[in-house]
Amino acid sequence: MMNDMMNATTDEIRQAIRQGNWDKPTSGLANGFLQTNLVILPKDMAFEFLLFCQRNPKSCPLIDVTDPGSYTPSLSAPSADLRSDIPRYHVYRNGELTEKPTDITELWQDDMVAFLIGCSFTFEEALVKNGIPMRHNEEGRNVPMYKTSIPTVKAGRFEGPTVVSMRPVAEKDLVRAVQVTSRFPTVHGAPLHIGHPSSIGITDLDQPDYGDSVTVKEGEVPVFWACGVTPQAVAAHIKPPFMITHAPGHMFITDIKTESVGVI
Amino acid sequence: MMNDMMNATTDEIRQAIRQGNWDKPTSGLANGFLQTNLVILPKDMAFEFLLFCQRNPKSCPLIDVTDPGSYTPSLSAPSADLRSDIPRYHVYRNGELTEKPTDITELWQDDMVAFLIGCSFTFEEALVKNGIPMRHNEEGRNVPMYKTSIPTVKAGRFEGPTVVSMRPVAEKDLVRAVQVTSRFPTVHGAPLHIGHPSSIGITDLDQPDYGDSVTVKEGEVPVFWACGVTPQAVAAHIKPPFMITHAPGHMFITDIKTESVGVI
Repeated sequence: MMNDMMNATTDEIRQAIRQGNWDKPTSGLANGFLQTNLVILPKDMAFEFLLFCQRNPKSCPLIDVTDPGSYTPSLSAPSADLRSDIPRYHVYRNGELTEKPTDITELWQDDMVAFLIGCSFTFEEALVKNGIPMRHNEEGRNVPMYKTSIPTVKAGRFEGPTVVSMRPVAEKDLVRAVQVTSRFPTVHGAPLHIGHPSSIGITDLDQPDYGDSVTVKEGEVPVFWACGVTPQAVAAHIKPPFMITHAPGHMFITDIKTESVGVI
Repeated sequence: MMNDMMNATTDEIRQAIRQGNWDKPTSGLANGFLQTNLVILPKDMAFEFLLFCQRNPKSCPLIDVTDPGSYTPSLSAPSADLRSDIPRYHVYRNGELTEKPTDITELWQDDMVAFLIGCSFTFEEALVKNGIPMRHNEEGRNVPMYKTSIPTVKAGRFEGPTVVSMRPVAEKDLVRAVQVTSRFPTVHGAPLHIGHPSSIGITDLDQPDYGDSVTVKEGEVPVFWACGVTPQAVAAHIKPPFMITHAPGHMFITDIKTESVGVI
């Protein structure tokens, strides 16, 4: 199955997920194609959340937004069904995580709007191609993520701290890391911060708020990118009556070629 | 007055406009700062229009969107008042242009949302700095604009053709023109098309749909950029009960430095 999936098209991968044949994280699948975070909210919160994403493009880069009631991401994957094409979902009721289903067809309502938000898998692929290794992958962990002292820009009810992910980068690779990720503003883009964690309100690198800690070696500098967990954290913070997201690492696979969103 | 305005700060220029001391086009004012198009719509159309802009980022690059009811563009010019800081407005009722006031304070309603959309003045400045002259400025005309066969991506009621502006560029400068404008995705970015007008549904360069025709000289190629008239044309097309925009050429001046939105 794994080998099949590695060589499958994006449509085939989504079909396998839809049929219940893949409920694991999507890292490494569909190389060269954008994967996205998912946030589903009722229409009465959709304008504010759309505004929030527009005001916070580094943490919430929008790849696609569905028409109210539609589960078809017509710009990014017209053959997909967002109710079933993600390996695992998180369902929140009044801000509490109540279910972790692999299909939400039964939960879908006619007033829902789905937001697909750029994911760091994409720029990690670009960094690795440029010879900059990902420590969390080497150590078999999730990328460490931290709440920062950098506020997001409020929109209606949505507000809260910017969440960042951290990757240690060798000093000699810092310039290239900035260049490579600057090409991809729709997947968080250039780093938010290079250097001292305390400058952005992080007190202990070994105690991430999400994910796992990783080793920072001699001669390496911690580099922080805006993180797609931000919109989920912010949305969860205001405890909407009903919200559905992807489960961490279980992303939506689009038909958009990564290179096609490179700005130069 | 003109000389004063040329050396004034963005805040001073907006004050002069607010006090009725400047009702002319803003081209050439506040060099180095972003100017924007303006579209004001009632809240019940705001989600659809925001979605439309999100889906059509080349023609509708959003610089700032106000909270419903607010006339303060808090991200782009916190000291501004969008009811008075634009030299001239166009007021549309049921799709018809009914008034051209210099102040809309009396017309402002509590449910209005203001959209500030990137303007080509910004990338023209970058082109000129790179030695690529603007023919319409040389000839003292407005830039020629054309409806194309390139459809915008529909969002709710909003749909219609993409409008482009055209600038003749010497063949030797084509590469640089693409590079320079690619840096600025928030002000229309890279060209939509280089070459034959007929490839994008334009039958006669001498008959623009908006603005004035300009001379295309021997050895020059017509280059087409997505145009900020698109959202106005699309919004006017669906004849909203009430809409306010800037008058062509009479833009909103922000506090955002042009260089700060360059992606690299």
